[in-house]
Amino acid sequence: MADWWAVSGGITAPKGYRAAGIAAGLKPSGSNDLTIVVSDVDAIAAGVFTTSQVRAACVDYCRQRLAAKPSARAILVNAGQANAGTGEKGWEDAQESASLVAQALGVESDQVLVASTGVIGQRIRMDAMRTGIPEVVKQASAENGEIAAQSILTTDLVPKAIALETRLHDRPVRIGGMSKGSGMIHPNMATMLAFVTCDAAVSSHLWQDMLARAADKSFNQITVDGDTSTNDSLFALSNGQSRTPAIMEPGSDADRLEAMLTEVCIHLAKAIARDGEGATCLIEVQVTGAADDQAARRIARTVAGSSLVKSAVFGRDPNWGRIAAAAGRAGVSFDMAQLDIDLGSFALMRQGQPLEFDRQAASQYLKQAAEGAYLSGEDTVLITISVGSGGGSGTAWGCDLSYDYVRINADYTT
Amino acid sequence: MADWWAVSGGITAPKGYRAAGIAAGLKPSGSNDLTIVVSDVDAIAAGVFTTSQVRAACVDYCRQRLAAKPSARAILVNAGQANAGTGEKGWEDAQESASLVAQALGVESDQVLVASTGVIGQRIRMDAMRTGIPEVVKQASAENGEIAAQSILTTDLVPKAIALETRLHDRPVRIGGMSKGSGMIHPNMATMLAFVTCDAAVSSHLWQDMLARAADKSFNQITVDGDTSTNDSLFALSNGQSRTPAIMEPGSDADRLEAMLTEVCIHLAKAIARDGEGATCLIEVQVTGAADDQAARRIARTVAGSSLVKSAVFGRDPNWGRIAAAAGRAGVSFDMAQLDIDLGSFALMRQGQPLEFDRQAASQYLKQAAEGAYLSGEDTVLITISVGSGGGSGTAWGCDLSYDYVRINADYTT
Repeated sequence: MADWWAVSGGITAPKGYRAAGIAAGLKPSGSNDLTIVVSDVDAIAAGVFTTSQVRAACVDYCRQRLAAKPSARAILVNAGQANAGTGEKGWEDAQESASLVAQALGVESDQVLVASTGVIGQRIRMDAMRTGIPEVVKQASAENGEIAAQSILTTDLVPKAIALETRLHDRPVRIGGMSKGSGMIHPNMATMLAFVTCDAAVSSHLWQDMLARAADKSFNQITVDGDTSTNDSLFALSNGQSRTPAIMEPGSDADRLEAMLTEVCIHLAKAIARDGEGATCLIEVQVTGAADDQAARRIARTVAGSSLVKSAVFGRDPNWGRIAAAAGRAGVSFDMAQLDIDLGSFALMRQGQPLEFDRQAASQYLKQAAEGAYLSGEDTVLITISVGSGGGSGTAWGCDLSYDYVRINADYTT
Repeated sequence: MADWWAVSGGITAPKGYRAAGIAAGLKPSGSNDLTIVVSDVDAIAAGVFTTSQVRAACVDYCRQRLAAKPSARAILVNAGQANAGTGEKGWEDAQESASLVAQALGVESDQVLVASTGVIGQRIRMDAMRTGIPEVVKQASAENGEIAAQSILTTDLVPKAIALETRLHDRPVRIGGMSKGSGMIHPNMATMLAFVTCDAAVSSHLWQDMLARAADKSFNQITVDGDTSTNDSLFALSNGQSRTPAIMEPGSDADRLEAMLTEVCIHLAKAIARDGEGATCLIEVQVTGAADDQAARRIARTVAGSSLVKSAVFGRDPNWGRIAAAAGRAGVSFDMAQLDIDLGSFALMRQGQPLEFDRQAASQYLKQAAEGAYLSGEDTVLITISVGSGGGSGTAWGCDLSYDYVRINADYTT
C-alpha cells in the first residue's frame, strides 16, 4: 500500500532545512535546551495548537503570527521554562526571542515561530537566550536532525524522530519530523511538541487542512493521562525545495502527500504514547463498524484512555469487561448486541456475549508486550473492537498505568 | 440555611418502608448479598441510569418498567453477579427475579424493580435467588436500614447511608438513602448503585425531574477513575405516608423537598468518592464565576478527575499548574487572565498569575487531609476556582490517585 520508505536525518532529511541544538543554560541539568530549525527559503507554515483555555504565551504568539501570514523561516524551541502563566512579560519574552532569531538569521521577525516546554509559571531565562540564540543559529546545519530531536526533550526517555521519502513525478519528496512529550511527568512540566518539515511545494491552504486532518488521526488520538497541556503545539513547514510541481488543489498528489504526512504524525504520536510516564508497553485500539470515522476514533480514544483498561494491561489481565465498559461510555451510540472485542489474536467477545478463551495465554500475550523491545512494535498490545456494520474506523494509542506513573507524579516536591 | 436535620434509620427512616439483607449464597465469600426495600403502599418511582451503550439487563428492564408506569412497591438488589453482557438469558433472569419478589409480596410483578452489582459477564445464580427471595421478603422490617446498606456492598470499605428530616406544613417528612460503589475495584466488578426513599406525597413528574437535577449535582459530579459502569443506577421512591399535602406543582414545598433530596444525593455521592479505590482523602472542587452552572460543573468535574491533580494530592504537592491546566482543558471557554485558584486557605493563583505561597504549609494541609478521620469532613482537600464574573457555580468530588489504585486494579488474575 504505502509507496514511501524511511530515510535517515529526521527533521533535516527534507531538502533545504538546517537545525541545531545547544546547551544554552536554560536547564539546571546543563544538557541541551535550545533548538532551532531553519528553512533556507520561506516555507509555508501551518500549526495545530492546544485547545486549552490556559495557554502559554508562545502558543498565543504563534497562533497570531500564522493567522497573519502562513509562512516562516525558522522555529526556535526552548526547553526548561514553559512560559505559561507568565502574563504580559511572557508575551514580551516570546517576542524578543523571535526578534533575536530574526536578527541572527537576517530575516524579518514575523518569519520566526517560537515554542517553549518546561516548568509552568516560569519565565524563560532571557539572559541565557540572548547569548544562546546567535550561537544556535550559527551551528545550524543539515546534519543536525538527531541533535535537534535530542535537544527539545525534557523528561522524555528517548528522542522521537522519523523521515520518509516518496517520489512525486519522478522526483524525491521528503517529510521529516521530531516530537517530545511523555505526559506531564514533572510537576508543572507539560507539553507535547512536534515539528514536521517537508520539501514539497504545496499551497498554504491545503497544507493547513492536511495538517489538521493528520493531527486528528495521530496526536489527537494519543493519551497518556488524559491531561492536555498549556503548550501543546504541532508545527509543519513545507518549502518547495524538492522542485516537484506545486500542489495547488486536492487530487492524487495531494492525497499522497497527506498520506505520508499522516504516517509521519502517527509515528511521532505513537512514540510519545510509548514514552508515557511509567509505561511498560504501547496500547493500540482499533475500532471498526462505527457510523463514521469520528465516532470510531472517539471510542478508540476512550478505551485507550481508560484507567481501568490501562491498569488491567499493566496487571496482564485480559479483561474484556473493562474494554466493553469503556467502549460503552464513549458517548457514541451503538448496539451492544453487535459488540466484538479481540485482544491480539484472542477473541474475547462476539455479538455482545463474552467467550471462553485461554486466559493464561492471553495474559502471556500482555506480558510479552511489556518485555518487547522499545518502539520495535513488539511492545504493542492490540485491542480490536467492532461496534456494528458501519463504515467508520479509527485508531488510538495509549500506554499502561503502572506504579511508576503514580510514583513519578506524586513524589516530587515533598 | 438548611432547614433539615439528620435522623437515624437510613433507607427505612421515612414512614412506610421496610428492608432486609441476607446471605443468599450469591457471593463466594458467604457475606450478605441479597437486599430488598419494600414500600407498604404503591410509591411513586423515578430512576436515573447509566448512559453507557453497554448496559446490564436489569438497567434496561427497569428503564422499560418505569417508562410504562412510574410507580413501584419494591426494589431487589443482588450483589455478586452484575448480569451485564448476559444477553437474552440475562433479561429472563431479571424478569424472573421481579416475579419471585412480586409473588412473595403478593403484588403485581410490574411493581418490582431490580438492580444487580458484581462481576460483568456472569448470570445471576438463580437457584440461590429462588430460595433467597422469599426469605429476604419475609425478613423485611423498618429496623433494617443499616443491614440493607451493608448488604448491597461489593468491594466497598464502608456502608453509605443517610436520612434527613424536615417539616412541611408542620408534619415531619423524611428522605433516606443508601449507596454503594468505589470505582470498578475488581476486574469486571462495576457499579454505583444508590437508593432513596421518601414519605412525601409528590407527583411522579415532579419527582423524576427533581431526581434528575439532584443526580446532576451529586452522582454525576463524582469521579473515581473516570469509568462509567454498565449497571450504574439511582432509584427514588416516594410513598406519601408522611400525610403531608400532595406536592403537585413547582413551588416552595417542591423546592424544599428537592433541596433535601439533593442533600441526600450529595452525601451518598461524596461517600462513594471518598471510598474510591486506594483513596486517602476526598477532593472537593468548587468552581464559581462561570457563564452557567453546567459550565462550572464541567470544570469542577475535569479538575476532580485529572490523574495529574489526583497524583499531586496523593504526593501532597500543592501544584497549581496542574489545577490550572485541568481547568483549561475542560472544554469550557474562559479568560485565563481571570483565573483564581485556592487550595484550602492558600491562594495559589490570582488573575492568571501564580502567587508566592508557603509551599510547606500547603503541603501540610494536604497531608492533614490524608490523616483526617474517614468521612468526618476533616479528610477533605478543598480546591476553589474562579474563572470570571459569571453567575454559574458548581462542585465536584473525587479522590486522590495512589499506588493502591494501581495495585488493586492490576494485581488480580495473574
